[in-house]
Amino acid sequence: MNTSQLETNSAPNEVGQEMYQLIRELFPICRSITGNGFRETLDIIKKYIPLAVHKVPTGTRVFDWTVPKEWNIRDAYIKNAAGQKIIDFRNSNLHVLSYSVPVNARMSLGELREHLFTLPDHPDWIPFRTSYFTENWGFCLSHKRYLGLEDCEYEVCIDSSLEDGSLTYGEFYLEGESTDEVLLSCHTCHPSLCNDNLSGVALTTFLAKHLSSLALRYSYRFLFIPGMIGSITWLSLNEDKVPRIRHGLVVACVGDPGPLTYKRSRQGDAEIDQAVAHVLKHSGHDYEIEDFIPFGYDERQYCSPGFDLPVGSLTRTPHGRYPEYHTSADNLDLVQPEYLADSFSKYLAVLDVLEGNGKYLNTNPKCEPQLGKRGLYEAIGGQANRKASQLAMLWVLNLSDGKHTLLDIAERSGLQFSLVRHTADLLLDHGLLQEAPE
Amino acid sequence: MNTSQLETNSAPNEVGQEMYQLIRELFPICRSITGNGFRETLDIIKKYIPLAVHKVPTGTRVFDWTVPKEWNIRDAYIKNAAGQKIIDFRNSNLHVLSYSVPVNARMSLGELREHLFTLPDHPDWIPFRTSYFTENWGFCLSHKRYLGLEDCEYEVCIDSSLEDGSLTYGEFYLEGESTDEVLLSCHTCHPSLCNDNLSGVALTTFLAKHLSSLALRYSYRFLFIPGMIGSITWLSLNEDKVPRIRHGLVVACVGDPGPLTYKRSRQGDAEIDQAVAHVLKHSGHDYEIEDFIPFGYDERQYCSPGFDLPVGSLTRTPHGRYPEYHTSADNLDLVQPEYLADSFSKYLAVLDVLEGNGKYLNTNPKCEPQLGKRGLYEAIGGQANRKASQLAMLWVLNLSDGKHTLLDIAERSGLQFSLVRHTADLLLDHGLLQEAPE
Amino acid sequence: MNTSQLETNSAPNEVGQEMYQLIRELFPICRSITGNGFRETLDIIKKYIPLAVHKVPTGTRVFDWTVPKEWNIRDAYIKNAAGQKIIDFRNSNLHVLSYSVPVNARMSLGELREHLFTLPDHPDWIPFRTSYFTENWGFCLSHKRYLGLEDCEYEVCIDSSLEDGSLTYGEFYLEGESTDEVLLSCHTCHPSLCNDNLSGVALTTFLAKHLSSLALRYSYRFLFIPGMIGSITWLSLNEDKVPRIRHGLVVACVGDPGPLTYKRSRQGDAEIDQAVAHVLKHSGHDYEIEDFIPFGYDERQYCSPGFDLPVGSLTRTPHGRYPEYHTSADNLDLVQPEYLADSFSKYLAVLDVLEGNGKYLNTNPKCEPQLGKRGLYEAIGGQANRKASQLAMLWVLNLSDGKHTLLDIAERSGLQFSLVRHTADLLLDHGLLQEAPE
Repeated sequence: MNTSQLETNSAPNEVGQEMYQLIRELFPICRSITGNGFRETLDIIKKYIPLAVHKVPTGTRVFDWTVPKEWNIRDAYIKNAAGQKIIDFRNSNLHVLSYSVPVNARMSLGELREHLFTLPDHPDWIPFRTSYFTENWGFCLSHKRYLGLEDCEYEVCIDSSLEDGSLTYGEFYLEGESTDEVLLSCHTCHPSLCNDNLSGVALTTFLAKHLSSLALRYSYRFLFIPGMIGSITWLSLNEDKVPRIRHGLVVACVGDPGPLTYKRSRQGDAEIDQAVAHVLKHSGHDYEIEDFIPFGYDERQYCSPGFDLPVGSLTRTPHGRYPEYHTSADNLDLVQPEYLADSFSKYLAVLDVLEGNGKYLNTNPKCEPQLGKRGLYEAIGGQANRKASQLAMLWVLNLSDGKHTLLDIAERSGLQFSLVRHTADLLLDHGLLQEAPE
Repeated sequence: MNTSQLETNSAPNEVGQEMYQLIRELFPICRSITGNGFRETLDIIKKYIPLAVHKVPTGTRVFDWTVPKEWNIRDAYIKNAAGQKIIDFRNSNLHVLSYSVPVNARMSLGELREHLFTLPDHPDWIPFRTSYFTENWGFCLSHKRYLGLEDCEYEVCIDSSLEDGSLTYGEFYLEGESTDEVLLSCHTCHPSLCNDNLSGVALTTFLAKHLSSLALRYSYRFLFIPGMIGSITWLSLNEDKVPRIRHGLVVACVGDPGPLTYKRSRQGDAEIDQAVAHVLKHSGHDYEIEDFIPFGYDERQYCSPGFDLPVGSLTRTPHGRYPEYHTSADNLDLVQPEYLADSFSKYLAVLDVLEGNGKYLNTNPKCEPQLGKRGLYEAIGGQANRKASQLAMLWVLNLSDGKHTLLDIAERSGLQFSLVRHTADLLLDHGLLQEAPE
Repeated sequence: MNTSQLETNSAPNEVGQEMYQLIRELFPICRSITGNGFRETLDIIKKYIPLAVHKVPTGTRVFDWTVPKEWNIRDAYIKNAAGQKIIDFRNSNLHVLSYSVPVNARMSLGELREHLFTLPDHPDWIPFRTSYFTENWGFCLSHKRYLGLEDCEYEVCIDSSLEDGSLTYGEFYLEGESTDEVLLSCHTCHPSLCNDNLSGVALTTFLAKHLSSLALRYSYRFLFIPGMIGSITWLSLNEDKVPRIRHGLVVACVGDPGPLTYKRSRQGDAEIDQAVAHVLKHSGHDYEIEDFIPFGYDERQYCSPGFDLPVGSLTRTPHGRYPEYHTSADNLDLVQPEYLADSFSKYLAVLDVLEGNGKYLNTNPKCEPQLGKRGLYEAIGGQANRKASQLAMLWVLNLSDGKHTLLDIAERSGLQFSLVRHTADLLLDHGLLQEAPE
């Protein structure tokens, strides 16, 4: 594994543009937790990475849950008395309550209103609503449009189907030196919403693509799943693989302008928690770190007490805290390439810490070794960095007692992980360090 | 055990009035660490709870101490040259130095002054003074009166006796489901002083009365003892019972207007310490929490290193920190029903935490169970509470791994114990939790 | 061991003057890490304490290092074209780059400049520079003098020798009751620099002299060594003694006006770290406490991972943080008797804590013992101190459970160690404490 590749081979700005293009391509598709839109999405991702596509039949028991019927939709609209389509699914797939059962009826405004959802506080925006586990149908529309509805008879059509089929998910396993795994999981079930979570889908795709070109210490597992039922399904069908997961992140909301926000794993002090905290602390940007709570995305399942996996969630503005959340305003304007690129860099920096976080033994543990006679003072770049580099050597030598990881050393010394890692490589090359036994 | 009884059956205001009436009834009695006044007090408490009265003979060795002679007093006064009683025990039993030996003599003002105690900083108040372990006699009086003493011959009479007898204490043992005990101990030895400690006596009495009507998890032991020598005596004679004490509180100074103040046990992080801290933190009122120091009331003995019991002390203003402390101003004006009622509620809330602080196992530990299909979203009251209640369910399920108590869960989630407890009951009813093995 | 001796026998002001006189006597000698100047210095210290002088031959392998050649210098100067000595070693031994190889040559100003060192920011001061492990020669001079150099041919002479010889160090072992040791180590290799480190040499000398008159619990080892190579040499040749070192301090920079500064041992919470922190906290003066870093003086070697000794460093202003550091301005004006005396007192107070930091058992662990019947209330001095002393007795009794040292008790109670120690002695005398088994 060569971590400098991990850090330097990435061209964030270019990757930011590529992620944005992928989001733009995926945006129009009507996704839900099952159905053709989900599969169409995976087909597009397969252009970037060799995704395995798994189908789990409706009715499969997954722990306390059952894989639901598959939902597909062809068309939906509301016509007024004049026969004009006043709401048209083809304009925005958010218009239809996700998992709406088919309907084809005429009704009064009063009856129709029972099935309409709006956001009075944001009268121009269409809300995103779902009814996965209770049969219902409905339309979402802007409050402004809602207020303009005339009192007449309406024709309502939802040309959907809710039938036995399958739950589909995408999985890409990238084999590294070790069978220990890093899990990267993104929910891929939302329709035309950019930050939540096409941004996460795009970032996961490009991370996978980028890592594919590198020799890696860990194996990596990338999951593109429907939220909640997807992680429950994967965990249920892959219990044998769970013990290999050493670190993990749930990838979501990574394209908005907000600061990076990390939600710790249930364990709270796992290596992933330390690694993310280190990267954010040294990033020079604002950030937030929050404790685990059993609410949010799929970390709820990964961190359930029967698994208690070291899986946190690294987002920009977390779900529910930006006004555009779950509305038509979570669109291609909210998400921007520069924020995607920044998130990509931070994720890479975190993985760089995980990949390089070894534990070493000073081969001359009694007193300092003589750095000068090995040319190690000269080994270091410019005069300006010489003192910092020398200090890094002394720290790495002093704490390489088989108990401290390089991240521990970075934290105790206050130095950046990359410098500590680079220094350890240099000392390894000179025989002053050796790998610590497990 | 039904903790909702513990919380809802109490009518604090009514209980506050009843406690105040008991204090009023006990106020005139001249108590000391031994003697008839102490027994008379226990007889009155017996009207509320079936107290066992124990007598320990003078001279009994109790660890490093010896049960002292019994002190009784019938009358005491100082007459001036004109034969007028200028100090009269019948006006206030504080006038006599507690444990004064008998005296019947005539003396000059100069000689008398050696035996007079006043408070120059509070010239209207009579101090409370004792001489339990050194034979002496004396009178306490207001400094104003002291300054007005004329230079004449005085007749001094203390009609007391200091003879072999016994040390008396009251004990009420309330049997619960478990032989593990909660200890509630109050010093009952002070004469006409309300906050210190008729307030504690009354609170302990009414707690005992209230708990008597409930089915309880723990057994409870209520001790009405003379301060210091009483706890030493009880511990010495009941060493076999000590290991059963799982939690304890020393009850004192609970009727003044000051904020609740908790003094931690010597252990510092015992369950009682956590429980009291939780209740105070969520009370919405000011409060103080202080570390243990080996000074104060009977917690000094319970927390001596040979016992190191998890016993703290929950007071309002602690001893020595309010100006009326150990003076005639610690009277029926200082203590008020509303403060007694508030203290009573807080004590009940603490006991409610102890009673309900179970440890459970999530029966579906892998991923979340499906709450909707069990009607658990609807099980919850108003729309407004739905989100909080759902979060409480998720927290209880997530942390019920046999390692976290409900109090741990309340602390980690920031939720109130009562909500967590109620939620756990609901989940138990639905088979989603089971009791954790010990 | 009688710690009151340790504290009261010292007359700090007088000792401050004596230390200053020793510094004055040692100041003119040209020391380096080897050579006659170092030995001459040890000869003077031997007038105060019976120092053993060890010689380690050039070429001896000491861990990763080799004892260097011995350097001696007789004379050095630069003459201008007029034959005037414009730089003369006899005026200041700082003028010569330490470990300069011999040179006797004529050269232009341009050639000479390659070998001149100045401090442009402090144009009146001569810097102190060394070249121990790379053969070189050079002169140090004030920048003002440097700027005035005329463009002519110069005669340059360094009459030095760099030959096989030995590294010399001084060692004084003071036997106490136990073979467990306290290490006090000072680097003695600098030429005419007062704070760094004649101040440390003088303080170590007078501590050794003072402790020699006392009965001590610990044995003490005082090392007067060349910095870096000296501690490496000592550790390499005395590995068998290392496990006896229970506490240690590196003594340096103890004569300037700055506040006391403690650099913790690598362990960070060793008894020496606690003891120094306690003394500084109760000193009533400003102070700093800093975490260990693997940079500085010989604590770098004592705290290398193969030894990880509990050795901190107690200085006034640490090396490199005062402008006079390693310049001719670190002279007899910078260091003053009053600061030396204050440092001496603080060191003694720290050793007093170490010497007296016993662990005891309350012989009456169940409830408090009766202090009154043993006259212990009266045992205590003035009325004013009575309450503090009584509280100290209660704290010592309460925490003497074989788990808490007296320093632990002082820290938990907030009381000063000396009061806790005195109280423990009193309780020992009355049979209320006994020594805890190891």
